[in-house]
Amino acid sequence: MKVQGKHWRTIWLHDDGASVGILDQTQLPHRFETATLTNLADAAKAIQTMQVRGAPLIGATAAYGVALAMGAGASDAALEEAHRVLLATRPTAINLRWALDDMAAHLRAVPEAERAATAYARAAAIANADVAQNEAIAKHGLGLFEAAQRGGAAPLNVLTHCNAGWLATVDWGTALAPIYLAHESGLPIHVWVDETRPRNQGASLTAWELGQHGVPHTVIVDNAGGHLMQSGEVNLCIVGSDRTTANGDVCNKIGTYLKALAATDNGVPFYVAVPGTSIDWTMGDGVGRIPIEERDGAEVASMTGLDEKGALATIRLTPAASPVRNLAFDVTPARLVTGLITERGVAKASRQGLAALYPEHYPKEPAG
Amino acid sequence: MKVQGKHWRTIWLHDDGASVGILDQTQLPHRFETATLTNLADAAKAIQTMQVRGAPLIGATAAYGVALAMGAGASDAALEEAHRVLLATRPTAINLRWALDDMAAHLRAVPEAERAATAYARAAAIANADVAQNEAIAKHGLGLFEAAQRGGAAPLNVLTHCNAGWLATVDWGTALAPIYLAHESGLPIHVWVDETRPRNQGASLTAWELGQHGVPHTVIVDNAGGHLMQSGEVNLCIVGSDRTTANGDVCNKIGTYLKALAATDNGVPFYVAVPGTSIDWTMGDGVGRIPIEERDGAEVASMTGLDEKGALATIRLTPAASPVRNLAFDVTPARLVTGLITERGVAKASRQGLAALYPEHYPKEPAG
Repeated sequence: MKVQGKHWRTIWLHDDGASVGILDQTQLPHRFETATLTNLADAAKAIQTMQVRGAPLIGATAAYGVALAMGAGASDAALEEAHRVLLATRPTAINLRWALDDMAAHLRAVPEAERAATAYARAAAIANADVAQNEAIAKHGLGLFEAAQRGGAAPLNVLTHCNAGWLATVDWGTALAPIYLAHESGLPIHVWVDETRPRNQGASLTAWELGQHGVPHTVIVDNAGGHLMQSGEVNLCIVGSDRTTANGDVCNKIGTYLKALAATDNGVPFYVAVPGTSIDWTMGDGVGRIPIEERDGAEVASMTGLDEKGALATIRLTPAASPVRNLAFDVTPARLVTGLITERGVAKASRQGLAALYPEHYPKEPAG
Repeated sequence: MKVQGKHWRTIWLHDDGASVGILDQTQLPHRFETATLTNLADAAKAIQTMQVRGAPLIGATAAYGVALAMGAGASDAALEEAHRVLLATRPTAINLRWALDDMAAHLRAVPEAERAATAYARAAAIANADVAQNEAIAKHGLGLFEAAQRGGAAPLNVLTHCNAGWLATVDWGTALAPIYLAHESGLPIHVWVDETRPRNQGASLTAWELGQHGVPHTVIVDNAGGHLMQSGEVNLCIVGSDRTTANGDVCNKIGTYLKALAATDNGVPFYVAVPGTSIDWTMGDGVGRIPIEERDGAEVASMTGLDEKGALATIRLTPAASPVRNLAFDVTPARLVTGLITERGVAKASRQGLAALYPEHYPKEPAG
């Protein structure tokens, strides 16, 4: 999407045909900086330190990480090592394993001498497929938005949590894709942006990308969404998902479950944008079963932003003696989800709903 | 309660018998500082800038504010002016009006020459009544905690939101009063402390006062409570209230409603500590009717803490171009509240429940 009027993707191959460009998202929203990945360690570090984040972009970065590794040496051992190192960077994102398994399967089938070129081509294909998938989600979501808007003049008020925007993908985003398409198609829209503690991806990334693209929005604290729904100021919620189970349970950024509860309590539709690649077909019920990443407590105890002199600064919020705990995700049960917006259409958040769109992943019912 | 091993109240009369001492809560948890109020303007500023906060402490400070005003001149006009100036400092807290009306009623009844002395005596009585009220809440809450604990060795895990501790009152606190009493009586207890954006009263005040008093606790982001309840790591929730209606709807810090939804969804008891003085007997249903204070957007867009050099610093979190909205309270409907812990006992959160404890505020049922 647009930054200062120019179109960008979040990851791209440099003109040298070898090194990979990324936006350094740890500097946003205060600084717009790019970084260059030249080897496997760079790619692993970019994922681990969240210079890149968001399940689809993590997948694309991992794919390019394998390509960078193959450029340095394409033995079976090197391929296994790249798979191992990159898989260990983030435990929750299902796309990470999906992309790495996909790369490994393609590369094992070709001779060592062809692996680097094949890897770059496959990584580019994964990145392009993500863009196409998100455009499809945008179109299916737009239909829901138009129905909710009913042709009125008042803006459609949409609440979102965390960042499932183009910064979380290669382009368009997942949850924000229908928002961008709605805005471009002239549907009046306004977005409530949850700041999304502890890492503030809403306040820093979602607000920044919506602002750069010209979409009206307002940043709120994570605590505010319930009251806004109760007072009729939210027409629908849309969030992304790091992992959705085969039964439609949604693992997403911590706090998503609370917003889904409030939406249900107030009759506000709660949609989740779910690319097929983020669905874990091996897991049925997700509550209590999806492992939840725990991150460094410093993310809770402190916060980074722009100080009065315009420099990035980190401040401590809690008493030095107080313990903290930092759970990164939660699971929203399917019963609280109005629909899953996939690249194949909108599914009911249930085994039956997903099986209708992805029959190849579900066992056939025994004949009557 | 204790700070560095010594007992403190949040507000006290200095030895000069005129000026009033307070803890400057805007400096916590990083600096433990006191401030002195010498006139009406000091008292109004202390409330408005949240050097003192919490409904009961606001009431006590307003009472001392009237006393300070009477010390400077005790005419009817001065009394009216003090009432007007102090009432305008915070729109939501019911105790503010209660304390001011109580002071005015007492002072109008005595000659001008006696008003200053009467005002100081009445302010001290209001402060002492708050302490007694909170001790009663502590005892009634302890019974519920002991029942939930069932004599086990594992700590009772209690989640709280914002700061309804001794810093919000004159001493003991409301929601934290039973926690302190449980801890002192040897019941093993651990408190999950919501950081409570945007002003972070949980991370800065609740964590600090629990830590100073030696109560085990862990700070979490506001987004985390739903997951903790879903995974069985919360045995009960207890929060304070700025205003509870005659039907049992609870207006409290923004985000309380979301935690009550999660508690209900997971069968976790959700209690509210409610001194009788914070009940608005004139209002039945509160949802959509209690006016919600909107505060300066800078509280959302930025945050204050301790920088790497140990100085208080404010950092900007959001893009400069992004609008923000700062709603300070929300309303939790009575149906989500397990019980209201008052100084007279535990009431069901309903008109009937409150009427049984406070019959003097409800019209008598017509006979047979």
